[in-house]
Amino acid sequence: MKLLKHTVDHIKEVLIDATGEIQAKFNTFAIPRGSLGRLEELATIYASIKGTVICTIKHKKIFTMAGDHGVAEEGVSTFPQQVTRQMVQNFIEGGAAINVLARHIGAKVIVVDCGIASHLESQPYLKIKKVGLGTRNMAVGPAMSREEAIRSIESGIELIEEELEDGIDIVGTGDMGIANTTPSSALLSVLGSMDVMSVTGRGTGLDDESLRRKREIITRAITVNQPNSNDPIDVLAKVGGYEIGGIAGLCLGAARYRIPVMLDGFISTAGALIAHAIEPKVNNYLIASHVSAEKGHSMMLKFLNKRPILDLNMRLGEGTGAALGISLIEAGVKLLHEMATFYEAGVSEPHGE
Amino acid sequence: MKLLKHTVDHIKEVLIDATGEIQAKFNTFAIPRGSLGRLEELATIYASIKGTVICTIKHKKIFTMAGDHGVAEEGVSTFPQQVTRQMVQNFIEGGAAINVLARHIGAKVIVVDCGIASHLESQPYLKIKKVGLGTRNMAVGPAMSREEAIRSIESGIELIEEELEDGIDIVGTGDMGIANTTPSSALLSVLGSMDVMSVTGRGTGLDDESLRRKREIITRAITVNQPNSNDPIDVLAKVGGYEIGGIAGLCLGAARYRIPVMLDGFISTAGALIAHAIEPKVNNYLIASHVSAEKGHSMMLKFLNKRPILDLNMRLGEGTGAALGISLIEAGVKLLHEMATFYEAGVSEPHGE
Repeated sequence: MKLLKHTVDHIKEVLIDATGEIQAKFNTFAIPRGSLGRLEELATIYASIKGTVICTIKHKKIFTMAGDHGVAEEGVSTFPQQVTRQMVQNFIEGGAAINVLARHIGAKVIVVDCGIASHLESQPYLKIKKVGLGTRNMAVGPAMSREEAIRSIESGIELIEEELEDGIDIVGTGDMGIANTTPSSALLSVLGSMDVMSVTGRGTGLDDESLRRKREIITRAITVNQPNSNDPIDVLAKVGGYEIGGIAGLCLGAARYRIPVMLDGFISTAGALIAHAIEPKVNNYLIASHVSAEKGHSMMLKFLNKRPILDLNMRLGEGTGAALGISLIEAGVKLLHEMATFYEAGVSEPHGE
Repeated sequence: MKLLKHTVDHIKEVLIDATGEIQAKFNTFAIPRGSLGRLEELATIYASIKGTVICTIKHKKIFTMAGDHGVAEEGVSTFPQQVTRQMVQNFIEGGAAINVLARHIGAKVIVVDCGIASHLESQPYLKIKKVGLGTRNMAVGPAMSREEAIRSIESGIELIEEELEDGIDIVGTGDMGIANTTPSSALLSVLGSMDVMSVTGRGTGLDDESLRRKREIITRAITVNQPNSNDPIDVLAKVGGYEIGGIAGLCLGAARYRIPVMLDGFISTAGALIAHAIEPKVNNYLIASHVSAEKGHSMMLKFLNKRPILDLNMRLGEGTGAALGISLIEAGVKLLHEMATFYEAGVSEPHGE
């Protein structure tokens, strides 16, 4: 709890372009005002977090957080539980979508075992931050203890701190965990005061009957556990997951060190909901890369007042949306850093200016 | 006319994933089916045009086509005409937005003088394909002769042919030309049978009074010239522009050599409208990178039945949207090329498959 408290205490409010200096710099560039649209907005967010108009993005790190879920035994996913572990192996070997996209944008993928249901050896591309061997089935009792929930968040904070020395200019979040749309929907329902029906979608591809059952399980988990919606750690413990807590920790840890966080999809944003409920100041450090095809994601983004950069009908997780979003914010930051001004380029300004 | 006719005669229809081979390959990957959303769709378009499931994108070339417009003398832009030439110099020196974004995605920018109103020397990063010293004022007569219109299109075809030896896997279009939203709106109005009011927007930032005047000028140009909407070359000649004809030529030339074309915004899509009217088979070679903030662009895309990849409220031109779109289709193509299958990764398939 000490690390979590210390981290939260040190998160500073970000004001977006408080001095107007970033907008002023964009206005000197040889383009019609505002014509770069959201690229300008993204660069402004980045530079505001960094606290300087002169900034670049060099070290891009995507954390793919993996964990298992006891609730998988209720049949809420189309995939068997061992796929979490198998996909982690695939990440380590570089054959997954997140590896391809991270190579494409020049980012490093850090795979993290937050609580897979079997033991894994530490490997060069795998970090072990195991809180438990999968959570317990939330349909019959709390997914984890309060201590485990705190431990999962602190693991995420530690991950940020461990990368500080090597350099970390932007964090991408990602997830892997069979059944993890189930706790994510539960978290949204509780923290957003939304009904289970509307926040629960098909995950990896449930049919109508399985979707009906998934909603029933989530309703049961909330009824059985009675999470206190004013206590985000209680909510995480009762109906969350280890990797979701880990992602909350990444958000808090990054904010504490003024590092922007590019959120991936539904599960990542569930982690962001926890972080935001713990400390609302974290919100201005978070950027929504895309809106997932998973039903509840747009509701989460609206709750956090985030407008996604991309809408590509993706619903894979792993950090794939975050990778694409990082490349776009980097484009904006490079424009801010490298463009010639009207004066430098010898270009006439518009009439009347 | 010979080059244009020869090119059009050799454009083959593209069928998207005619054999189902591309979809079949995606279905072997260790991901829930369809979870890559539009990245899968983009890769499928690319591979279908290339005619092979095994493909990569190496040579990315963005053509920034520059031309001047006689109609600028009517005060339809906020910028003075010499800015076209000044910005071309900025492109050559590498300080413009398109240079920054092309470097970001690893593309080459080819700047082309299609008809700037002053003489420019050929330089390493500048190609001279000058049809005239700016078009004539379309508000009082045809912008160019029929021969000039054909010449402008054939210049675009030549640009593609000149790059074949060096290699060209994807074409990005781009434009620079003070006042060129005016002919683009006129082209949309005539070719799409849409009223001038609804297709005409603020360009680089006109106020209400100037926008009213711009609409009046476009209406007058159409009334004075009476372009034949069934003859796209007549329409281009009477109310078009040299760089717009050049972009039409890029589309036709690329299609003839089975090269995908990533369209930029409003002016590029006006060029695509001309190409499409000349030969509808060109349509499946065209990909819409983004929807511009310029009013008529979404109408153009609807007319061509294109769904843009991005919606970032950009309205700069130069090829900036195309650059971002190229990076995203490249992401999709890399996924198709590099991902591990369920079998290779040792990942269990979903229940019931």
